[in-house]
Amino acid sequence: MADEVVLLDFYASLFGMRVRISLAEKGVKYEYKEEDLRNKSQLLLQMNPVHKKIPVLIHNGKPVCESLIIVQYIDEVWKDKAPLLPSDPYQRAQARFWADYIDKKLNHAAMKIRLTKGEELVAAKKEFIEILKVLEGVLGDEPYFMGESFGFLDIALVTYYSWFHSYETLGNFSIEAECPKLISWAKRCMQKESVSKSLADPIKVYEYVVELKKWLGVE
Amino acid sequence: MADEVVLLDFYASLFGMRVRISLAEKGVKYEYKEEDLRNKSQLLLQMNPVHKKIPVLIHNGKPVCESLIIVQYIDEVWKDKAPLLPSDPYQRAQARFWADYIDKKLNHAAMKIRLTKGEELVAAKKEFIEILKVLEGVLGDEPYFMGESFGFLDIALVTYYSWFHSYETLGNFSIEAECPKLISWAKRCMQKESVSKSLADPIKVYEYVVELKKWLGVE
Repeated sequence: MADEVVLLDFYASLFGMRVRISLAEKGVKYEYKEEDLRNKSQLLLQMNPVHKKIPVLIHNGKPVCESLIIVQYIDEVWKDKAPLLPSDPYQRAQARFWADYIDKKLNHAAMKIRLTKGEELVAAKKEFIEILKVLEGVLGDEPYFMGESFGFLDIALVTYYSWFHSYETLGNFSIEAECPKLISWAKRCMQKESVSKSLADPIKVYEYVVELKKWLGVE
Repeated sequence: MADEVVLLDFYASLFGMRVRISLAEKGVKYEYKEEDLRNKSQLLLQMNPVHKKIPVLIHNGKPVCESLIIVQYIDEVWKDKAPLLPSDPYQRAQARFWADYIDKKLNHAAMKIRLTKGEELVAAKKEFIEILKVLEGVLGDEPYFMGESFGFLDIALVTYYSWFHSYETLGNFSIEAECPKLISWAKRCMQKESVSKSLADPIKVYEYVVELKKWLGVE
C-alpha cells in the first residue's frame, strides 16, 4: 500500500513550516490542506481533539500532532533518507533541548513583539534578541546547528526566519545587526530547496500579522 | 571506561523522580546529589546555565537537562535493557504526545491546586480531574499506557502519584473516587521496585508542600 499522507496546516504557521521542511527533506509526497483558523474544519477537530491546532500529519488515516513530535515521527518512519536527528544520543539530547528552548522561550518573546507596544515592546525586543544571541552561541562557527548536516534543530529554528521581517517592522530594529552569524546561517538554510519552498513569503506573513493585530484589536 | 553517572535532583521533584525510575529500570548505578533549591550549587548552575533547574543527568562529565529529554537519552544510551519508548514510530509519537500533554496541562493544574484557594482552588481541582480523566481514557483497559509494557508515558505520569495525597489534602477531594482505573494503574506501577524506590514518600511531599506554601505566603 502506498503511503497516504495529508498535512493540515496554515501557510504562515512557524510550526507547520517545520513539518513541510521535514517532508521535503525526506521526499515524501503529501496532500496539503490549508485550514481557516477562525473556522476550523471538522477534520482538524476530529484529528486533534485535544489541542485543536495545526499542524496535524495524517499518515494512513492516523493523526500525529505537535510539530516537534511530528518531525521526529517523520524522521523515524522515513529513516532511509536525510536523517534529521543526529545518531549520537548526546547530540540527539542537545538537539531536543534547544528545540524545546525555542518553543518555550523564543516563541513567547516573538508573541510579545506581535501583541504589545511601548515599553512592553521594547522589553520584548530585548528578550527576543537575547534568546537569538544564545542560539547564535550554540551555532558557533558551524554551518548548521549540529555540525555539517542540516537537521532537527535547524528545522525548529529556521521557520522563524520567515517572520523576521514582521518582527523587524513591528519593532523597528534589525536582527542582522544584532545576530549576523545567525542570519548567515538562515541564508545558508534558504539555499536548500526544502527550506525555501516551505517557508512562507515574509511579505505575506507581515500582511497576515497586520490583519491579525486588527482582528485582535492590538493595532 | 566505566560510566560515571551523577544525578542532580531534589527528592520531592516530579521531574527528578522520572529520571530515578528510568535509571532504576535500566539498572544504571549513579551518584545522587540532593540540591537545595533555595541555594543552588555551583555545579547545578554550571551544568544547567539556561534553566538552572533540576534534574540534570551528568554522564561522563556532560550534562543532559529537561526530564523527558533525559529519559529518552537514558533509553537511547542503555538500549539493551528495559526499552522505555515503544519501537513502533506511531506508538512513540503517541507516547511523546501524551507526555507533552502532562507537562503542558497537568502540571499547570497541579500547581494551581498548590497555590490557590477559594473559587480558584475549586476550578483548579475541576481542571485537574478533567485532565486525569482524559489520561484515564488513554489508558483504557490496558495494564500500562502503551499496552503490556511499563514505559515512557507511565514514567511521565506515575511520579504525580506521590503528590496525590498532597493535592487531595489541600483540595479536600478523592482522586480515586473520580478516577479508579488510574489509581489501579498507579498501584500496579508501584509494585515495580524501580517505581516504589524512586517515588518520594507522600507524607514527606505534603510536609514539603506545607513548608513551600508558608515560604511563598500562600497558606
